[in-house]
Amino acid sequence: MHALPAEFALIARHFRPLAGEGALGLGDDAAVLAVPAGRELVIAADAIVAGVHFLPDDPPDLVARKLLRTNLSDLAAMGAAPLGYLTTVSVPKDTPDAWFAGFAAGLAADQAAFGLHLLGGDTTSTPGPVSLSLTILGTVAAGCAVRRAGALAGHGIWVSGTIGDGALGLLAATGRLDDPTGCLAGRYRLPRPRLALGLRLHGVAAAAMDVSDGLVQDLGHLCRAGGVAAEIEAACLPLSDAARAAGPALLMRCLTGGDDYELLMAVAPENEAALQRAAIETNIAATRIGHFRAGPPHVTVRDPDGAALRIGAGGNDHGGWSHFA
Amino acid sequence: MHALPAEFALIARHFRPLAGEGALGLGDDAAVLAVPAGRELVIAADAIVAGVHFLPDDPPDLVARKLLRTNLSDLAAMGAAPLGYLTTVSVPKDTPDAWFAGFAAGLAADQAAFGLHLLGGDTTSTPGPVSLSLTILGTVAAGCAVRRAGALAGHGIWVSGTIGDGALGLLAATGRLDDPTGCLAGRYRLPRPRLALGLRLHGVAAAAMDVSDGLVQDLGHLCRAGGVAAEIEAACLPLSDAARAAGPALLMRCLTGGDDYELLMAVAPENEAALQRAAIETNIAATRIGHFRAGPPHVTVRDPDGAALRIGAGGNDHGGWSHFA
Repeated sequence: MHALPAEFALIARHFRPLAGEGALGLGDDAAVLAVPAGRELVIAADAIVAGVHFLPDDPPDLVARKLLRTNLSDLAAMGAAPLGYLTTVSVPKDTPDAWFAGFAAGLAADQAAFGLHLLGGDTTSTPGPVSLSLTILGTVAAGCAVRRAGALAGHGIWVSGTIGDGALGLLAATGRLDDPTGCLAGRYRLPRPRLALGLRLHGVAAAAMDVSDGLVQDLGHLCRAGGVAAEIEAACLPLSDAARAAGPALLMRCLTGGDDYELLMAVAPENEAALQRAAIETNIAATRIGHFRAGPPHVTVRDPDGAALRIGAGGNDHGGWSHFA
Repeated sequence: MHALPAEFALIARHFRPLAGEGALGLGDDAAVLAVPAGRELVIAADAIVAGVHFLPDDPPDLVARKLLRTNLSDLAAMGAAPLGYLTTVSVPKDTPDAWFAGFAAGLAADQAAFGLHLLGGDTTSTPGPVSLSLTILGTVAAGCAVRRAGALAGHGIWVSGTIGDGALGLLAATGRLDDPTGCLAGRYRLPRPRLALGLRLHGVAAAAMDVSDGLVQDLGHLCRAGGVAAEIEAACLPLSDAARAAGPALLMRCLTGGDDYELLMAVAPENEAALQRAAIETNIAATRIGHFRAGPPHVTVRDPDGAALRIGAGGNDHGGWSHFA
């Protein structure tokens, strides 16, 4: 397409070293790869924009790793193993070479950590903010993908890891919340896709997704997909020490804020032991925070007295926690 | 991620009707699909930005179709058949619903025309210009992908269709060239991916790619991939009637301008009859414009007297045709 003046040199210098099997050295019109027999392809794509999804002065290696990891989190939610990715990079014409070097270094680090490689993509100029997209490819044993639909009344609601660190981390990263250890900002900048646990979910979780838009909103998706209602106990929410230290006034933000990239699962009572075993063996916490019940799709969050918290309309506006209902 | 306020409604209204097998109604974290036994996956991604790759006031249905078709052209060059696609759409917050409706209508029209469907993607806001990406998936019989490497000295250089209409069409679309029939601007706005011919190239073309950055620059890629030099005859260049009417002063633009989306092929003499048969049967013109010869990778364009035309450095700057060398 309309190349940056130095597009080919940029690609050769920074991206070709990331290319693996099937990428054909990024020198053809497309990548060609075999999906192993008995496996299905799992594929998803995300776009992120500077000033919307990340801070314009975030280090490019962290931007790259977050972009890759948020997509890996989608694979984890489907119970898939990573295979490869394509990325498109639209940047201002005066973007320094060091930005590309940092971006590629971040990808290289996480390729090694998660076992996948670059398959292709595109680099172009933009008069606007840095705009990135990433398409992730994974595989799953045929018929074994974990879906969002499947939650039944009586299933437990489980989450991996801790909830709310990403949303509090955004506050910390923008100077609106004390974060003496830096671990909240770290969780915002660098999600931890729960791939190892995801690989154990087939036959264990009746439904799953990743929590990226806020627990309450995303749990609403599981409810709609399963045709059930959800009840969660605020007191059961797994909070990190840092989130706990931030104080109870921020609980609603933990419930409705985004950027958790934890797994949200519906688990039948007879499979809870298997889930706990998987959690121990993968060294990823799994916590039961409530249950699904019959009823129209709706999420209720109860305080320790059993009263329903009032949740603001739309999980993403961070509003609405005016009082206990 | 950080959703547009009405993101879910937008997706349901405009994009879900485009989703096909494996897309899971766009309701899961990823699509899941089987690649048929004996087939390999072919995958590529492009990004386009308003004001860089298309005109900000281009109708959204044509923008969508061009985005899809330029990617389909990459499949054609690999000899692959279309399977599906993912698209990411970053648009200003005040983008009217009609823009999405038009964009989706364009995708719908070309899904039907080319036999593929939407598998997933992302919709997000941007403070900058409309930024789009598309990842295309196709399949090819295992081991039968057509590659860029493979041109040998003595192979003919062939192109499909006509060359230069896209570059002249950009001039026409921006009011810099008369285009009484509108067919040049039409070629710029709506490429014609040569999928039917591409499907016939395995065993016929020793190497192929699509012409998107200008014939001379892209032929240089085939030369480097094959370790050969190329000689083409300006007089053999297949020009449309409209390009011919634009006059010989624009020949250099036809040779170096972008947006052709035709196939460029290296064909051994013993396979030329098979290529011509494929061209006739698919109703896509194929023209021999020169040959590869031994020598360091380099493209020479000769005028009818056999003199080498001087080509500007970098095919995309449209410059350099100062005189006959």
